[in-house]
Amino acid sequence: MTGIFSKKSVYAQNQILELDPLAEKLSRNGKKVVKLNRGDPPKFFPTPKYIIDAYVKALRSGATYYSRAQGLPELVEAVVARYKRYSMDLDKDDVIVTAGVSEALLFINNALMNKGDKGLLLAPYYPQYIPRLMIEGGVPLVGNMIMERDWEVDTDSLSRKLKKMGHGRQRIKYMMITNPHNPTGKVFERNALEDLVEIANDNGILLISDEIYDEIVYNGKKFTSLGQVAGDVPHIILNGSSKNFDSTGFRIGFMVIPGEDKVSQSLREKFSQYALVRLSLNTPSQFAVAEAMKNKKEHEKAISQMVSAISKRVNFAVEKLRENPYITVTQPNGAFYIFPKLDMKSLKFKGSKDFVTRALMETGVQLTGGYSFGSPDNFRIAALPPVETLEYAIDKVNEFCIKNAKK
Amino acid sequence: MTGIFSKKSVYAQNQILELDPLAEKLSRNGKKVVKLNRGDPPKFFPTPKYIIDAYVKALRSGATYYSRAQGLPELVEAVVARYKRYSMDLDKDDVIVTAGVSEALLFINNALMNKGDKGLLLAPYYPQYIPRLMIEGGVPLVGNMIMERDWEVDTDSLSRKLKKMGHGRQRIKYMMITNPHNPTGKVFERNALEDLVEIANDNGILLISDEIYDEIVYNGKKFTSLGQVAGDVPHIILNGSSKNFDSTGFRIGFMVIPGEDKVSQSLREKFSQYALVRLSLNTPSQFAVAEAMKNKKEHEKAISQMVSAISKRVNFAVEKLRENPYITVTQPNGAFYIFPKLDMKSLKFKGSKDFVTRALMETGVQLTGGYSFGSPDNFRIAALPPVETLEYAIDKVNEFCIKNAKK
Repeated sequence: MTGIFSKKSVYAQNQILELDPLAEKLSRNGKKVVKLNRGDPPKFFPTPKYIIDAYVKALRSGATYYSRAQGLPELVEAVVARYKRYSMDLDKDDVIVTAGVSEALLFINNALMNKGDKGLLLAPYYPQYIPRLMIEGGVPLVGNMIMERDWEVDTDSLSRKLKKMGHGRQRIKYMMITNPHNPTGKVFERNALEDLVEIANDNGILLISDEIYDEIVYNGKKFTSLGQVAGDVPHIILNGSSKNFDSTGFRIGFMVIPGEDKVSQSLREKFSQYALVRLSLNTPSQFAVAEAMKNKKEHEKAISQMVSAISKRVNFAVEKLRENPYITVTQPNGAFYIFPKLDMKSLKFKGSKDFVTRALMETGVQLTGGYSFGSPDNFRIAALPPVETLEYAIDKVNEFCIKNAKK
Repeated sequence: MTGIFSKKSVYAQNQILELDPLAEKLSRNGKKVVKLNRGDPPKFFPTPKYIIDAYVKALRSGATYYSRAQGLPELVEAVVARYKRYSMDLDKDDVIVTAGVSEALLFINNALMNKGDKGLLLAPYYPQYIPRLMIEGGVPLVGNMIMERDWEVDTDSLSRKLKKMGHGRQRIKYMMITNPHNPTGKVFERNALEDLVEIANDNGILLISDEIYDEIVYNGKKFTSLGQVAGDVPHIILNGSSKNFDSTGFRIGFMVIPGEDKVSQSLREKFSQYALVRLSLNTPSQFAVAEAMKNKKEHEKAISQMVSAISKRVNFAVEKLRENPYITVTQPNGAFYIFPKLDMKSLKFKGSKDFVTRALMETGVQLTGGYSFGSPDNFRIAALPPVETLEYAIDKVNEFCIKNAKK
């Protein structure tokens, strides 16, 4: 039984959580650990009571059987209704409910990737786009977002790269957009999205937009969904209850595939088959998320309170980080992450992996290294804890940088 | 975007549910449909109240965040304690919690299968072993169970087949056993399991035992877990809350990998990585299943009532089916399926697919064709509905066979 594993299995990993064993060990040894590595809102904001009530009601009414594989009809209806906010007129078959965006990524990559096919990502990218792509035989093709231009996508260089690839472009199975953006907090303007749609259209590339933070937008910015600008270009929107409905632990996500073209039609049929393979998702939580979306009054109250608190925390953390002379910070306007860049020339770190590992060991603050996001000099902070915790942790990080500055 | 799909994606399908669209259409047109195609206990037996209470308690206490990827510590502890029933002394790292057995099959096949590697199944096999194996590049190698010998595994022919394969045996990544057996209801005797362990040991094959029905055993039979007989041979046990704890809609399964050998150690590490890739499972349902297992008094009461009802339904259905001169029926002693064989020579059907399709259209009874299980002349009944429903449905099926007998 030597060499029992498949070649693809080496890509099964999670870099956001890779310092967890070290953090646990430090914690067991009595060190105070502050975890700023993960975006898990319910740890800081209790899931709204009306959602829990709906969940309990489903349980008490016996909803513990297998649900429709593609999604509980009540939830699918609620998703269809939700997308009217973006003037999208969905059919129920346009929605496939998944176990978080994670399962949507599994369906997409498994269904699309032959060995050597490409998935186009924009760096910095959410790290978990990579393992699923590569496990399924795909190869990342990376375009860039430019920090100095407030994380604008470098569309000129991307267009040139695609042109140069010639027929090789046909093996690019999708372009992935994250909006609002993880890890930078950027909210894409409509015209920026239109540029990406044009590139996809010119090159015959399927667009995927991960919009899991679409209601967590602040500082006066307005969110535009890919569905509002994609027109006839085949596209998939990923979303779920985790962030907007403050319920990561439900594991309820969904895919929206609105096109009337043949590609969109065949994607719907294919993903429906993938849903059937794993039989069902958790049933009572689907009832809860259906109610979470349908009860707009309660939702508006809950989301506006949460977003208001998040924006204060993020903006406070940005100010605190700007006290650090060895990092550059851009302003997030969505999600709850900050993605500063380390001035590596002035610091004694061998890269962001060295930085986050030593920061955890020496200060007890757990960050995520930019190397996981395709941006080796940056690091990510999930700015969800209360201001006092952020103040404590960022002070520690700032002192740690100063201590490790080259003389 | 022509040919957008991967080659492997053609294997994404579910034959147990493939008649569902036809059944829905008939139902919409006013036909009475009786679904005997699926093993979904909560549709007929409400999930025990003490389990629902624990689920509600977890929700009310705010357990809506991401859980530990490999499983909530409380649930892992409960699984460890549960396996003392089979004199197994597990460590917490021996348990990986999965979204049903379905996700365990995903982890196993993805982690083990290179293109052309083999998974050894015993026909009749649970149909959903096939798509996951083939999606991941694997090829089924099929041994046989002999209906005439009460579904005894044909170990002589299996051993000869493996011997003949020579070094090719090294590409057999596992042998899958289902005990209690779906679709036949067979409960494997200890010596039968020992024979399979010996074959695995002789040929260096990892053993996997799907024991999802291990407490649903009746007619005086006693269940033996693979863990009680596997000894030093590396093995994985699959189980979950769906059937024994009457909660298919929770989607909580688990893998147990108890060996102290290097292969078992590396399997635990690998599957832990796969768990991290998809972040978390539904959290509150894991608290519920932990309590479901820990509260032995309530569980004993619930499971004995359910098994008593199931055995009456199965045994009634067997008697009813024996009135049909065109089928042969073996006696199930576990799970809740019956897997009769059609006397195709005397019947005007082109195979079991033709039989189940026409049976649904003409009688409204939805069965599953044996072709999905590798036994083309059989069909499967899930004998979960009340006796009156079974009587109505089996009378219909029997009449349908008589009507379609060759003169």
